[in-house]
Amino acid sequence: MQRGFSSDTGPAQRGFAAALGTWRTKEGPLARSLSAAVREAMIDGRLPAGTRLPSERELARTLDLSRGTVVTALTLLRDDGWLHTRHGSGSVVRLPARLTERTTPWSLDRGGARDADLDLTLAVTAAPHEAYRAALGRAVERSAALLVDSGVATPGLPRLRELLAARYTRAGLATRPEQILVTSGAQAALTLLLDQLHTDRRAPVVVESPSYPGALAILRRRRARLLPVPVTAAYGWDTECLAETVRGKGPQLAYLIPDFHNPTGAHMTAPVRAEVAALAERHSLTVVVDETMRELDLRTPPRPEPHLSGARVIQIGSASKVLWSGLRVGWIRAGADLVRELVRNPLQAQLSPPPLEQLIAAELLRESRGEGDGEGDGLDEILTDRRTRLRTQRDHLAGLLTDTAWTYTLPDGGLSLWLHLGEDTTATELAARAAERGLAVSPGPLFAADRTTLAHHLRLPFTATPDVLTRAVELLR
Amino acid sequence: MQRGFSSDTGPAQRGFAAALGTWRTKEGPLARSLSAAVREAMIDGRLPAGTRLPSERELARTLDLSRGTVVTALTLLRDDGWLHTRHGSGSVVRLPARLTERTTPWSLDRGGARDADLDLTLAVTAAPHEAYRAALGRAVERSAALLVDSGVATPGLPRLRELLAARYTRAGLATRPEQILVTSGAQAALTLLLDQLHTDRRAPVVVESPSYPGALAILRRRRARLLPVPVTAAYGWDTECLAETVRGKGPQLAYLIPDFHNPTGAHMTAPVRAEVAALAERHSLTVVVDETMRELDLRTPPRPEPHLSGARVIQIGSASKVLWSGLRVGWIRAGADLVRELVRNPLQAQLSPPPLEQLIAAELLRESRGEGDGEGDGLDEILTDRRTRLRTQRDHLAGLLTDTAWTYTLPDGGLSLWLHLGEDTTATELAARAAERGLAVSPGPLFAADRTTLAHHLRLPFTATPDVLTRAVELLR
Repeated sequence: MQRGFSSDTGPAQRGFAAALGTWRTKEGPLARSLSAAVREAMIDGRLPAGTRLPSERELARTLDLSRGTVVTALTLLRDDGWLHTRHGSGSVVRLPARLTERTTPWSLDRGGARDADLDLTLAVTAAPHEAYRAALGRAVERSAALLVDSGVATPGLPRLRELLAARYTRAGLATRPEQILVTSGAQAALTLLLDQLHTDRRAPVVVESPSYPGALAILRRRRARLLPVPVTAAYGWDTECLAETVRGKGPQLAYLIPDFHNPTGAHMTAPVRAEVAALAERHSLTVVVDETMRELDLRTPPRPEPHLSGARVIQIGSASKVLWSGLRVGWIRAGADLVRELVRNPLQAQLSPPPLEQLIAAELLRESRGEGDGEGDGLDEILTDRRTRLRTQRDHLAGLLTDTAWTYTLPDGGLSLWLHLGEDTTATELAARAAERGLAVSPGPLFAADRTTLAHHLRLPFTATPDVLTRAVELLR
Repeated sequence: MQRGFSSDTGPAQRGFAAALGTWRTKEGPLARSLSAAVREAMIDGRLPAGTRLPSERELARTLDLSRGTVVTALTLLRDDGWLHTRHGSGSVVRLPARLTERTTPWSLDRGGARDADLDLTLAVTAAPHEAYRAALGRAVERSAALLVDSGVATPGLPRLRELLAARYTRAGLATRPEQILVTSGAQAALTLLLDQLHTDRRAPVVVESPSYPGALAILRRRRARLLPVPVTAAYGWDTECLAETVRGKGPQLAYLIPDFHNPTGAHMTAPVRAEVAALAERHSLTVVVDETMRELDLRTPPRPEPHLSGARVIQIGSASKVLWSGLRVGWIRAGADLVRELVRNPLQAQLSPPPLEQLIAAELLRESRGEGDGEGDGLDEILTDRRTRLRTQRDHLAGLLTDTAWTYTLPDGGLSLWLHLGEDTTATELAARAAERGLAVSPGPLFAADRTTLAHHLRLPFTATPDVLTRAVELLR
């Protein structure tokens, strides 16, 4: 645990009993209830990790329990990884390594071995724990100067804009900081761009089929007419259909996910990228390219395609899938002129993340374990670890599916498998049956522009632990 | 300085020279340039407050300067409050008390005595420094458990919803946590409510004249037809006009600021509140009440009116004016059913603040200097201090205006004076002349629903320091 976070003494310790709340009313043996109460108080943040526990004797007295009950409760916590005892210096609560050293959000398996509800509708990860805590500490150290200023929305913290521009430039897409607008996520970026560019609400918008439900929901809320273009992991983008749609229907806007497409995992080849960019230029079509999944390349080593770019292409990105959804930092990369226009949009201030979160993002991007400023940044190091974990989980999930009739193309990246269940199985029915048994999954129609097709598909994220994936597949079969 | 923020050793010290950047290229004496570079590095966050400086000898060697130059630079910093030297334990950089112990954002007067540009268009404050830093520290201590979860948007952190509900209940408006939806600010709250409730974009919306330009911009962006109802600090709301408008034009939505109305400072009396609520109920008019300024009551002691409430009234609030804009935490108080509907709106996730910022808000609301949970919360203590400072600044600004022809009603609360310049002076012309001399102010038409009336009014926020206010009024005259 790094300096600055421990709380060996202080109010947390004095209020230990208070932090536990009304745990006695729970059923079962007292020792088990007490250990559960400690775990819950930590998860709720009432009891900070690093809090030193009072002595066994004090605990027994304060909580009005026998010493034996206290010893049993502490043993349960210690065995489970929630308590660390250093000889001679007492016991300190902490989060178990199995929660902090992984990419799976704890709420996905907080039931442990019990038959708790499993939610596999979200393809999201927990934060990279140690790196995030360290970045948080550094951001807090540097926050004093922010607090004496107004805190009003800006196009982004200068350092963060520089770091993001540098990442694009390193990846071969020359970018100046003035071309970056920091937003509170990729969906916020899309909302702002639509408000600015999609001013005639009857104008149609090209989307992929399937596509990301969050983006479809934003577009539907605007009552935009959606023009779907098929994409599959096996055959990629139907560029002929795209070209026909653009020529025939004259859309001015398209929303595409060329990198580890959500949900199929399809990855657009460099020639197709060039074709799309040329088509956009020829037909004055503005293409919003969602790069949220771009860094989740699970190949060893990663082999990124060039960015889909061009005069009519706007990139949007987010730290939500790569780092953590709770950071709420995303961005738009566009021409500096458009960025200046977007800053004047009344929605921009509301979709601008808090300065502190931008500082945390900058610290996560900046920090390099090596000395000096070489190639790459802190994000590259975090990604190496996360890719390894996700690859293991992807392969575990694939292994579980080998003797089913369900088919899929193993994706080179992203966070989920896109299953074809076969013509006899309807995904919404399967999802409904699974829900009855406590498992929530996302059926194909959720990803369809028309909400009805893709009836035989199911998305299964591999962001869960192998244990949870095993139970989920057992339930589904 | 509280535990957890000092950085007596570590990379910050080792990289001291690096943190300063390329300061030598600046004009003027070296010692002055060096001291300016240290100040700028702190303001930029490159040099965290609390960093221990290397010894004078080391500094001279590392920076390749004479010892005399270093001594002079450090003396300048010390005299200006940027350096604190403890006998025998070296020197530590810090933010001067004149920046941390006030409500004015530093960017408003970073030019110090120089003729820098003055921006009086924003009525915003700096964070309550010590209380905010302490809350930040506690939030970080409690953040470990958040980081192991998904971080996706929720209706709000349970503890924050409880604290906000408790504040309403204490103020006489019984509220359950399920009635609170946490948003990234009051404007975010308004945007979400409009998207949900103002679905027929041609439907007219009642606003005050003048009104808050941020809200007007959001409404205009939707191309909503605005129905202005006059309000003045001296006579309050024109309820007759309001009733006629509601009866005659049949609007379904109104946006009002009954508490220390922005910009006039008008405060709606209890009988008028009841009248508005009754009118809303009678005519199925949903009233969105913006309570952003409510806590900025500058009377001693504060005498809050009852919340404007009723079956058709939705309250929105924000920490931006009371605590800090950079926190980006606001909320909606509505029926639990509407809150549930809003959570399903695709915009909600984008307008939900990061979990860490919600944790900071909860810590700011929670902490009470006294032991135990009595009446009131941490916010009440912060407010007492901020009200005192703002009152002094308001009275200073009022004093500066005594021998001008400009008139105003001294507001009981809020952050600005609403001046009437007289029929011979046009505010936009005055603002243009002021801009030429480096002072930015907001002329009346900015606050008008039709963007043209209120031509003889000017808003002057008293969020600046007395020095800056004095210079601003001198420039304006």
